[in-house]
Amino acid sequence: METKTAEMASSLIEDEVFLAFSTYATLMVLKTLLMGPLTAYFRFSRRAFANAEDVWGKSEEEKKKKLRTHPDVERIRRCHQNDLENVVPFVLVGLLYTLTGPDPATARLYFRAFAASRLCHTLAYVLPLPQPSRALSWATGMGVTLCMAYRLLSHKMLL
Amino acid sequence: METKTAEMASSLIEDEVFLAFSTYATLMVLKTLLMGPLTAYFRFSRRAFANAEDVWGKSEEEKKKKLRTHPDVERIRRCHQNDLENVVPFVLVGLLYTLTGPDPATARLYFRAFAASRLCHTLAYVLPLPQPSRALSWATGMGVTLCMAYRLLSHKMLL
Amino acid sequence: METKTAEMASSLIEDEVFLAFSTYATLMVLKTLLMGPLTAYFRFSRRAFANAEDVWGKSEEEKKKKLRTHPDVERIRRCHQNDLENVVPFVLVGLLYTLTGPDPATARLYFRAFAASRLCHTLAYVLPLPQPSRALSWATGMGVTLCMAYRLLSHKMLL
Repeated sequence: METKTAEMASSLIEDEVFLAFSTYATLMVLKTLLMGPLTAYFRFSRRAFANAEDVWGKSEEEKKKKLRTHPDVERIRRCHQNDLENVVPFVLVGLLYTLTGPDPATARLYFRAFAASRLCHTLAYVLPLPQPSRALSWATGMGVTLCMAYRLLSHKMLL
Repeated sequence: METKTAEMASSLIEDEVFLAFSTYATLMVLKTLLMGPLTAYFRFSRRAFANAEDVWGKSEEEKKKKLRTHPDVERIRRCHQNDLENVVPFVLVGLLYTLTGPDPATARLYFRAFAASRLCHTLAYVLPLPQPSRALSWATGMGVTLCMAYRLLSHKMLL
Repeated sequence: METKTAEMASSLIEDEVFLAFSTYATLMVLKTLLMGPLTAYFRFSRRAFANAEDVWGKSEEEKKKKLRTHPDVERIRRCHQNDLENVVPFVLVGLLYTLTGPDPATARLYFRAFAASRLCHTLAYVLPLPQPSRALSWATGMGVTLCMAYRLLSHKMLL
């Protein structure tokens, strides 16, 4: 039984589209995950905390002053939220899309376009760059997910 | 090797439960994804922006006035957040549930109930409809995910 | 065709690592999902609502007073958000990691460490416990996901 699974898993992992999907999905999830430590860094450097227990070694009054929002922290948090809203759908739809056996060249083009668009989006959000750089990079990423969803639903549907 | 994967993928995609899951999961993720452009639409029509670079062609002072929250925008954002909190767990648990080989009629009933409940939830949130319409549609969706999780854990567990 | 899928699905489900992943992923998603009702409970007990239609049987003026934030509700919401930011990446990366055919003992150690770290994180956030309990439990969970991502990317990559 285990041999069969190992065989299947290895055949999945050796499939070109699945391997590319696995690589890009992992990189995109890592990118999203690393917004967490970045938020923590900005909270410390801007001295803007969300929880009383996060402020160290101060009198109660000074602690309360540090419980505030800061524009730089909020910007990182919006970027993180946008990643959650876009990267998670990409990975979920992308996994199902990969299993429909798409054309490898098209699939890898989609994955690369998505990864590039999200890197641009993060730069445009964090630096920040003037619009419409952020809007265009966001739209490109969403376009890729919509294309994969279209292929999925037009390939075969069961309601 | 690739032939084997293609075979496996095609056998997965031709499985009734997997095909139904794939269809409903994609539709639900698309529904969640489209809350993003809806938020952008409300930000423009209500002139309530989150980032200074999103406000065009105004003096600095006028720009600052547009950096505000608006009840309609916040409502859409709460609906989007609720989708993330409920649709993503449905897709993740649903994928694992699908692989346990459940009864096709039960599985499709679950998927349909979830999709219907989330559409009602969105209408109830965005219009808005009087309670308990939103609470009931939210509880139905969560109930479906709990049922699938129960089947998963009672079927076979390994801690 | 369906027999083949059933066979494959059953062989996946009978694989030790996949079964362990399926169990822990479901438990972690359930834990995240249950932050929703907990938020609702705190909204009612602290009388702090986000939507006008959620406040019952009061005059318009009294309703508006209940549309407010409350520190306890916001704390639960931050904990829920942190779960979304960390549990979803764990499940997505973990699924791909499971399919690379990792050593079962290592894989189960990862899954257990992640589950334990998230339970500690929730307790540390909700009670709350003094720092660095929350920071350490959060870092442990993230460390597990990074280890799995490293194994995934070092095992085989295709860009």
